[in-house]
Amino acid sequence: MAQRAKNILFIMFDQLRFDYLSCGGHPHLDTPHIDWLATQGVRFTRAYVQSPVCGASRMSTYTGRYVHSHGAAWNGFPLKVGEMTLGDHLRTLDVPSWLIGKTHMRVDAAGMARLGLSPDSVIGARVSECGFDVFEREDGLWGEGPDGVYDTQRSPYNEYLKGIGYNAPNPWHDNANSALDEDGALRSGWLMENADRPANIREEHSETPWLTSRAMAFVDAHAGPWLCHLSYIKPHWPYIVPAPYHAMYGRDHILPAQRDEREHDDAHPVYAAFMDNVIGRAFRRDEVRERVIPAYMGLIKQCDDQMGRLFAHLRATGRLEDTMIVVTSDHGDYLGDHWLGEKDLFHDPSVKVPLIIYDPSPMAAAARGTTCDALVESIDLAATFIETLGGKVPDHIVEGRSLRPFLEGRTPDTWRAFAVSEYDYSLTPMAGRLGVSPADARLFMIVDQRWKFVHAEGGFRPMLFDLDADPDELDDLARRPGHEEIIELMQQRLAAWARRPAQRTTLANDEIIARRGKSRRKGILLGAFDESDVDDELMVRYRGGSSDEAS
Amino acid sequence: MAQRAKNILFIMFDQLRFDYLSCGGHPHLDTPHIDWLATQGVRFTRAYVQSPVCGASRMSTYTGRYVHSHGAAWNGFPLKVGEMTLGDHLRTLDVPSWLIGKTHMRVDAAGMARLGLSPDSVIGARVSECGFDVFEREDGLWGEGPDGVYDTQRSPYNEYLKGIGYNAPNPWHDNANSALDEDGALRSGWLMENADRPANIREEHSETPWLTSRAMAFVDAHAGPWLCHLSYIKPHWPYIVPAPYHAMYGRDHILPAQRDEREHDDAHPVYAAFMDNVIGRAFRRDEVRERVIPAYMGLIKQCDDQMGRLFAHLRATGRLEDTMIVVTSDHGDYLGDHWLGEKDLFHDPSVKVPLIIYDPSPMAAAARGTTCDALVESIDLAATFIETLGGKVPDHIVEGRSLRPFLEGRTPDTWRAFAVSEYDYSLTPMAGRLGVSPADARLFMIVDQRWKFVHAEGGFRPMLFDLDADPDELDDLARRPGHEEIIELMQQRLAAWARRPAQRTTLANDEIIARRGKSRRKGILLGAFDESDVDDELMVRYRGGSSDEAS
Repeated sequence: MAQRAKNILFIMFDQLRFDYLSCGGHPHLDTPHIDWLATQGVRFTRAYVQSPVCGASRMSTYTGRYVHSHGAAWNGFPLKVGEMTLGDHLRTLDVPSWLIGKTHMRVDAAGMARLGLSPDSVIGARVSECGFDVFEREDGLWGEGPDGVYDTQRSPYNEYLKGIGYNAPNPWHDNANSALDEDGALRSGWLMENADRPANIREEHSETPWLTSRAMAFVDAHAGPWLCHLSYIKPHWPYIVPAPYHAMYGRDHILPAQRDEREHDDAHPVYAAFMDNVIGRAFRRDEVRERVIPAYMGLIKQCDDQMGRLFAHLRATGRLEDTMIVVTSDHGDYLGDHWLGEKDLFHDPSVKVPLIIYDPSPMAAAARGTTCDALVESIDLAATFIETLGGKVPDHIVEGRSLRPFLEGRTPDTWRAFAVSEYDYSLTPMAGRLGVSPADARLFMIVDQRWKFVHAEGGFRPMLFDLDADPDELDDLARRPGHEEIIELMQQRLAAWARRPAQRTTLANDEIIARRGKSRRKGILLGAFDESDVDDELMVRYRGGSSDEAS
Repeated sequence: MAQRAKNILFIMFDQLRFDYLSCGGHPHLDTPHIDWLATQGVRFTRAYVQSPVCGASRMSTYTGRYVHSHGAAWNGFPLKVGEMTLGDHLRTLDVPSWLIGKTHMRVDAAGMARLGLSPDSVIGARVSECGFDVFEREDGLWGEGPDGVYDTQRSPYNEYLKGIGYNAPNPWHDNANSALDEDGALRSGWLMENADRPANIREEHSETPWLTSRAMAFVDAHAGPWLCHLSYIKPHWPYIVPAPYHAMYGRDHILPAQRDEREHDDAHPVYAAFMDNVIGRAFRRDEVRERVIPAYMGLIKQCDDQMGRLFAHLRATGRLEDTMIVVTSDHGDYLGDHWLGEKDLFHDPSVKVPLIIYDPSPMAAAARGTTCDALVESIDLAATFIETLGGKVPDHIVEGRSLRPFLEGRTPDTWRAFAVSEYDYSLTPMAGRLGVSPADARLFMIVDQRWKFVHAEGGFRPMLFDLDADPDELDDLARRPGHEEIIELMQQRLAAWARRPAQRTTLANDEIIARRGKSRRKGILLGAFDESDVDDELMVRYRGGSSDEAS
């Protein structure tokens, strides 16, 4: 074993719930390979994403900064030129950061044009790809409709499928994310009624094995050191999976929906609007849950099997001995809990994610196989990676904190008292229906070891859950009097957080302290009446090289 | 008269108090030229800078954004690459923004290197100069001491003086900012005891006339449209002025210091630390005020005379008819008021500035010669300039609001209820003495039509003044019980302000609204169980170009 990990394999699944792993407590979903990783590392049981939606969550993870700091607040908000990324930080340590898979990053084309950055320059390409060098960029969102395509980039996965003989115009849809019915007709995976059918593709050609193969090819081709962000597209919708995974789970494996009729009573207006959107209305139907959840579980089972394949390859190539491995997700999936589908809000199924970190180094021996219930944020990963690779975390830029103490079985002297997540719904129809402006269509979550608090802009009341008394988050205590003090504390925490100097990124805190009062020794003599007020050496340059009065 | 101003002459003085003009109420300082401008335009009586210190204030003015948004929190904090400036906004309107004089901008060299921006490219030069094209950059801070020079750039002003025969190594200091005593020995202007002596330079060669001449040369050479930021170095320290201005004012013209012994009682710890710093201790001495204030008044009188010269030139060249003219400052000067010198804190002499805007267009006729007591911020200028030159204010980037309604004699439908200013003292020795961290060495001011509130990070109590009952701000009401409600309101205002989406700058608010719910028509079909849940046209692309099962 090396004294310190040389490489980092940063695996992110998309929309993987924290509790849909056997190590996360699922009673019917056996994920032995991810579980094995947990036995070799630390599993964090309270890891929160900075926003429960792909784009914003990932931009926080990749910058180590809150959404309120980087501004890419939802899918489709470009990450502005100038934001430093994980890739930028690791390059200062001479470690390249490679991407395989999804980022959901939208390029700030206007900002690049303003600064004259060409997307086909090395720097411009990195700015366009969230700081990564691209081994394979594939977001897997090849939607097409009457207004055109959702994503205008090239699709390496469609190119791959076409190259091996899948001849549809969009095999991502027609093969990997659709089924054939009994008559040979195409049944789109976009329609959840088709979720119980096998995808129209050989399993080894589907998205998850393809990305795994790409990762194995990457590992074989790169000596290291490297960070490789292996970013899977699944188990994200469309909910459809190839055989045999489509048939592994059935009605008996579906857990009861975590929901209660009381949640409709005097529901928070924003929550009510999401319950009432097309997704919420769908997921309250039993037939939707009964088709979707087994497919979702099959997708996860496939992911786990691919982890087995990948870990075996790492073992065989010696990489298990010098590579930190991280498994996490960008957000969860409601699956009908709380009368909601997908993600977007702050109940645990949406905002809490699995997080397992394996560090091969001897320093991490004491913590192997442990769990940690500290309040962890996705932005902590950037800090952890910088420190793991020998760097000092630039804490004037990166807002997350290194998790290395936990990885080494140590208790840090101080740790955050609360975690923060944000949700910007200004781009959603719900903002229109609620009549809130783009500035006001925003939510903030503050969670501590006991309470979860949600502040809504726009004049709405807050939400509050007591996670001790009500771990399923069914009873919003802010609907009635009685918790004014805790709400006030949470508002104060939110206010202090919002005032943080998140944009003061051009001068390190050590440098600030070192520079205090130094301008006097560069001749800026404020408050001096006569020479008795200043040291003699400060005046030397001001005694005149010449007393000539000119012209 | 043109229907709309073609050019903007944006004049900023440095450290000019709002009340050291005859139109601002000074009983002994006659400033007829600036007063004349006020008769032709609107004088704003409650204009606040976003930070009472050169660098941070200017970065807010030049970006139209709060300090908390751009992060260049004090002198020496580089403005990060990527922040959009006035120059960037006006270039989209095909109007160049030219600089003559001071910006106090520090370049984000690390950020430029990261993005591969060369300072000698056109774009790199603008990024290096806060978005301006440089006609003349001259900060006038040529300090020298045992640790070297304060500013390492070239000094066009020193080059000018050397070119006309001033032979000292640093004529900015030895001539423009020093005097000769009776024995011909150099007496540095850094020492305030020398403030009553005439500067060792011919008046027409001193800084203010030199910059005025440069502005006249600019006007002659540029047909327009243009914005010209004429940014004077004076009446900022060193406090020394050439004859005859050095002798125009004396002890009789000094207003009593606006201070009270009660201010020392239970003073706010941060305020107490500033009162006790070398500047505060100096300015409580009568001899300091008696030397400095007449020199400061002489510097202002010289500025006003140069305004007369400049305005005459504009009149002669026809520019008065097509050029908006703005006169303001980056902050004020305590001059011993409140037991303080210089600026830094939030009493009116420091944080409030003169602001006069003359618009030549007929639309502005109704407001000529009026005053406006709305709460105005320096960041409003960027918005005003954009709108004046025909643009639409990008309100997802620029946080200020256009002042055009006031310039046209209209009352806007809504206006801000409070103004905000910030002060970051993390780089000052006071932070060290108070034992506060770089993150905590920050103050926020909220001022409305009646109350001025200061929040201090780091666990200190707030400050509160009732401007109706105590316009001189001598009685900090937060020292004793009785104003909890107004303090709570101010804290809530500060919190709401701090939560604003200031970094969501890559998508305009109109665009956000326009995009709501549009992904469905690009094939992202969430919440659909079967075809009955979607319009037929959404499914067309998903019915399969081919149902071949490949390979």
